[in-house]
Amino acid sequence: MIVVMAKDSTPEQLEDVKARISRRPGLEPQVSEGAERIVVGVIGTVTPDMRDEMALVPGVSEVIPITKPYKMASREFHPENSIVMVGDVAVGGPEPVVMAGPCSVEDEEQMVSTAKSVKASGARILRGGAFKPRTSPYSFRGMGIDGLKLLNIAKQETGLPIITEVMTPGDVDTVAQYSDVLQVGARNMQNYNLLDAVGETRMPVMVKRGLAASYEEWLLAAEYVLAGGNDNVMMCERGIRSFESVTRFTMDVAAIPVIKRLSHLPIIGDPSHSTGHWYLVTPVALSAIAAGAHGLLIEVHPNPDKALCDGPQSLTFENFANLMGQVRAVKGALAGDPVPA
Amino acid sequence: MIVVMAKDSTPEQLEDVKARISRRPGLEPQVSEGAERIVVGVIGTVTPDMRDEMALVPGVSEVIPITKPYKMASREFHPENSIVMVGDVAVGGPEPVVMAGPCSVEDEEQMVSTAKSVKASGARILRGGAFKPRTSPYSFRGMGIDGLKLLNIAKQETGLPIITEVMTPGDVDTVAQYSDVLQVGARNMQNYNLLDAVGETRMPVMVKRGLAASYEEWLLAAEYVLAGGNDNVMMCERGIRSFESVTRFTMDVAAIPVIKRLSHLPIIGDPSHSTGHWYLVTPVALSAIAAGAHGLLIEVHPNPDKALCDGPQSLTFENFANLMGQVRAVKGALAGDPVPA
Amino acid sequence: MIVVMAKDSTPEQLEDVKARISRRPGLEPQVSEGAERIVVGVIGTVTPDMRDEMALVPGVSEVIPITKPYKMASREFHPENSIVMVGDVAVGGPEPVVMAGPCSVEDEEQMVSTAKSVKASGARILRGGAFKPRTSPYSFRGMGIDGLKLLNIAKQETGLPIITEVMTPGDVDTVAQYSDVLQVGARNMQNYNLLDAVGETRMPVMVKRGLAASYEEWLLAAEYVLAGGNDNVMMCERGIRSFESVTRFTMDVAAIPVIKRLSHLPIIGDPSHSTGHWYLVTPVALSAIAAGAHGLLIEVHPNPDKALCDGPQSLTFENFANLMGQVRAVKGALAGDPVPA
Amino acid sequence: MIVVMAKDSTPEQLEDVKARISRRPGLEPQVSEGAERIVVGVIGTVTPDMRDEMALVPGVSEVIPITKPYKMASREFHPENSIVMVGDVAVGGPEPVVMAGPCSVEDEEQMVSTAKSVKASGARILRGGAFKPRTSPYSFRGMGIDGLKLLNIAKQETGLPIITEVMTPGDVDTVAQYSDVLQVGARNMQNYNLLDAVGETRMPVMVKRGLAASYEEWLLAAEYVLAGGNDNVMMCERGIRSFESVTRFTMDVAAIPVIKRLSHLPIIGDPSHSTGHWYLVTPVALSAIAAGAHGLLIEVHPNPDKALCDGPQSLTFENFANLMGQVRAVKGALAGDPVPA
Repeated sequence: MIVVMAKDSTPEQLEDVKARISRRPGLEPQVSEGAERIVVGVIGTVTPDMRDEMALVPGVSEVIPITKPYKMASREFHPENSIVMVGDVAVGGPEPVVMAGPCSVEDEEQMVSTAKSVKASGARILRGGAFKPRTSPYSFRGMGIDGLKLLNIAKQETGLPIITEVMTPGDVDTVAQYSDVLQVGARNMQNYNLLDAVGETRMPVMVKRGLAASYEEWLLAAEYVLAGGNDNVMMCERGIRSFESVTRFTMDVAAIPVIKRLSHLPIIGDPSHSTGHWYLVTPVALSAIAAGAHGLLIEVHPNPDKALCDGPQSLTFENFANLMGQVRAVKGALAGDPVPA
Repeated sequence: MIVVMAKDSTPEQLEDVKARISRRPGLEPQVSEGAERIVVGVIGTVTPDMRDEMALVPGVSEVIPITKPYKMASREFHPENSIVMVGDVAVGGPEPVVMAGPCSVEDEEQMVSTAKSVKASGARILRGGAFKPRTSPYSFRGMGIDGLKLLNIAKQETGLPIITEVMTPGDVDTVAQYSDVLQVGARNMQNYNLLDAVGETRMPVMVKRGLAASYEEWLLAAEYVLAGGNDNVMMCERGIRSFESVTRFTMDVAAIPVIKRLSHLPIIGDPSHSTGHWYLVTPVALSAIAAGAHGLLIEVHPNPDKALCDGPQSLTFENFANLMGQVRAVKGALAGDPVPA
Repeated sequence: MIVVMAKDSTPEQLEDVKARISRRPGLEPQVSEGAERIVVGVIGTVTPDMRDEMALVPGVSEVIPITKPYKMASREFHPENSIVMVGDVAVGGPEPVVMAGPCSVEDEEQMVSTAKSVKASGARILRGGAFKPRTSPYSFRGMGIDGLKLLNIAKQETGLPIITEVMTPGDVDTVAQYSDVLQVGARNMQNYNLLDAVGETRMPVMVKRGLAASYEEWLLAAEYVLAGGNDNVMMCERGIRSFESVTRFTMDVAAIPVIKRLSHLPIIGDPSHSTGHWYLVTPVALSAIAAGAHGLLIEVHPNPDKALCDGPQSLTFENFANLMGQVRAVKGALAGDPVPA
Repeated sequence: MIVVMAKDSTPEQLEDVKARISRRPGLEPQVSEGAERIVVGVIGTVTPDMRDEMALVPGVSEVIPITKPYKMASREFHPENSIVMVGDVAVGGPEPVVMAGPCSVEDEEQMVSTAKSVKASGARILRGGAFKPRTSPYSFRGMGIDGLKLLNIAKQETGLPIITEVMTPGDVDTVAQYSDVLQVGARNMQNYNLLDAVGETRMPVMVKRGLAASYEEWLLAAEYVLAGGNDNVMMCERGIRSFESVTRFTMDVAAIPVIKRLSHLPIIGDPSHSTGHWYLVTPVALSAIAAGAHGLLIEVHPNPDKALCDGPQSLTFENFANLMGQVRAVKGALAGDPVPA
């Protein structure tokens, strides 16, 4: 931490700042008198409250943190890429893993036919929502446990492991019993009780980026899960909110190489939610792969114009098969990881 | 709902659109052939899935909703201002209600001295966090139930009712037992299980605006609580995320008159979280009052530079007393409600 | 400037960093070896290119600037408030100065009647657009020099000095001849040739904040004018772009106290452009005054529903008179400047 | 245009709305009485002022535009892709065109060596800034006409046509004389006098997206140039401003397929400015190609750590050569245009 003194600060104020630092066990001040400002470096490991305290001390102009607030999520802590195993599917390795399926579980025929079709096209994990976060209380909120059971029928038929959203700590046990990856949705990225609860399991967890979350906040959400003792964390970029309203959200494709540099955790791209339009899903999916994503999350529906949720952004079976062919081609063209070490 | 046909749509596509509308019970299409486009109005009450379906129909260029998705939160549904009673304090009436206290409950001395001081300065409700949402898992996360008990000691000493945050459905009963207003924090604005849970109580609930929530999404969060049968809902503008980083968030002062026009619910301003700097709290508090806010939420601490949380944005007792004097003066200068009917 | 070394940087890299600093005349490195990182302070006045250079040096993790990039606009450079004289009207002093008039100059009757009415209600400066920046090339782009002449007829009739926008360096001489304050619009805030050109005059200049400009960029735009030798600069907060679309822009009311703290320049609030709706103008105008604005810029039109530009956000004469009464009342209620020194 | 009546509007107000529409030549009202609202469609071509007028009429709740405000830039106006010829280089066709070179022209050796190297690696157009928009008046603002002359030496040596920025109408003739493509920078995207001036030439113009410009505003900036009679317009996505500060801007990769759907104009991606970090340039460049970009704009410098401008985001010759190889590989892997018709 660096404490910058105000231009008009007094020698007494500087002494006060030094004393406050020295008073803390393990910390030591080091003063640099510059041409324009006096700067006090704090040597030792600073706690967050120390930073808040110093910001208020008379004569202090600014407090600048140096070290990152997340530890276990950082690449410095864990230099190699993490591989998260979902059944026998390795997420975070050289092969991009595509997770596909409908926004909402609706009925057995829908789930089984979708599972078979996306598997045939190359998807390795089946997605489907049973507990649905909806902006309006009057929208369809998912089939709940009955939906989880239908997902499992589709799993038995195809062998595809399942990713599905869990919305509240009270549902974690139930959802864990019926699924292979617990998804924490964008609107729950800072639902800390939920992060704690999924951190207590040892199951794979996918943390979607909040609508307006910084990279640091998103990595700190992952840190909650890691700090709970659960190493099986994946990140998912699903678009941030911007002023543009033609797309549903704005896909931040640079998040993919940034997260790979800052962290060892696998990073997945979600072109369906980020764009909100089926005709944008393929180009944005390919862009995520070209930027180095470890996988994709794609909405597929047997009949998008009859979908109970997110029809406009869902692909048909045929469009998904076509997308998968292009994903393989683009991935094959990449000469290793495009992110420099 | 309005369905706009594509410029190159065919007569068959138009017939298909009309048929899809007519097929739904209670709906009827009405076609307007413009110079540039054909537009089909949908007469009757449209469900959200209908809108999604139509967006996908071949020949359709755009689907435009007309009616607002929230009902019970709208001023059309309830033309008079709602008054939410917190004990004997009326929120939403002519007197602005100031809620003040520390970010976090720390100890009895802190809570009781703060409660006495803010009461003497004119605050009507005591705030204090016992369950704290923190960006980092390594930050102080609040005293929990012990904090709730300290809040109640301060309540007994001063008679001030209590507002405190509840973070998860499993805590609603406990927090409700020890408090007078349940606060849903910004990061939980779309935690729908929590909104359902507080909607099942009959206690006053304050819904803080999410960091990147639109007015419509925020009113829909309130609608969750209202739809649960709980009429005692207040809104709180606490700043939105923007590109500017000097302030912690960007106070959207226009939200105050907008919410008053769209809704009957009381609207509170939070200058502490929105600015993040104690020296901005007073000017922004006065701006909220001048814009017509029904109240304020202010962080006050006996010793901000020792606060365990949010010290830099907390006022001292003296600064708070000074703020209250100015709030009364500005409120007194307003000639009725500045928002035209 | 502070150079933070990477965790895995080598002693040779540290030596290289120190050598690069020492090589520059007047600069000296000062090394602090922390528990987690080595930090090198740079003593002396750093040029912007130095910062860019250091960011690329092997072993460097981060470069953190300390001093503000604007000089003449800063309060440290000029501790007292600046007063900008517009004729005999002092902007930046204790009395808020209201500038009012139509978005576009349309005809003599419109301008003269508006000037008389706003003067009678207490406005001190007349606004009116003759050169109009319009998003579409097909919109009305202003009357040009004929509009400037009509503004001057209104000035002769009322004595009100004139503020009007200049859009391009080639027009600065002409607009300067016919006006008292040159307005640089939000979309031109980073039109550096225009800032240079108005900096060469000695006329009052009002710099509106860009739609997505940070405080620092906005102050640097003012710095361009000041660096040209023109001290007569005013700032105008007119709302920033956010994700919310109900309001045209988002009024950042905290910008008012922040600019007053960082700078000595007068700061004006524009509730008309920031909100886009006439019924929001009064509450937001009052909020700007309560936050300490030195003045307001308000759109007034004799007949808003016939206005050639921005009718929906224009006030009628009657509504403006009403607003002025409330502005005086709120200003009268403020006990000095709400921004702490 | 659609006029939505307020829930409590009167029959007289509806008659007034209809009369106002009928009064305009060529317009006709068509009333739809819905279950919840009365909606009046306006048949005929609506002018922008009509929309403003109607928003103010008593009894009107909302006015919804239907047709896009840009005409010549729209794909409906010109269904085939436009090809812009820069010398003998076709921009907008099947081959992606890479424009590369330094941020600023510095000296002959720098320009000639860069031109030779980027040409050898496959770049088709040479970039270099002679007039530089800089946030601070104290930064290096470019070599001006001397820089243009150095660009031309590099052109003579390599045959590469030149793209360079023009900042103000007064410089258009000079810059046009020394270059092959006029670049309108992001900060000037709404400098309408400049757009008019480049629209009067018949030279290729590249319009960079403003920092907070919507797709519609950006296409309207292009419309200014097209409306001036200049068909040779290219668009460039260079990142938008968001709350995230790790990257300099946020690359909106979905802009590429969206612009291709809405417009016939070529669309170029700029990974250098959007990310601000050299190590993000390659992954983001590949993502733009995978999303269907017609070309790239890349900063390359012989010695990035000595660059007078934007060193941290510049590639070395070697990194650029490597990037070009990957661009060719990814482009080769794409099966035609990923944007569905």
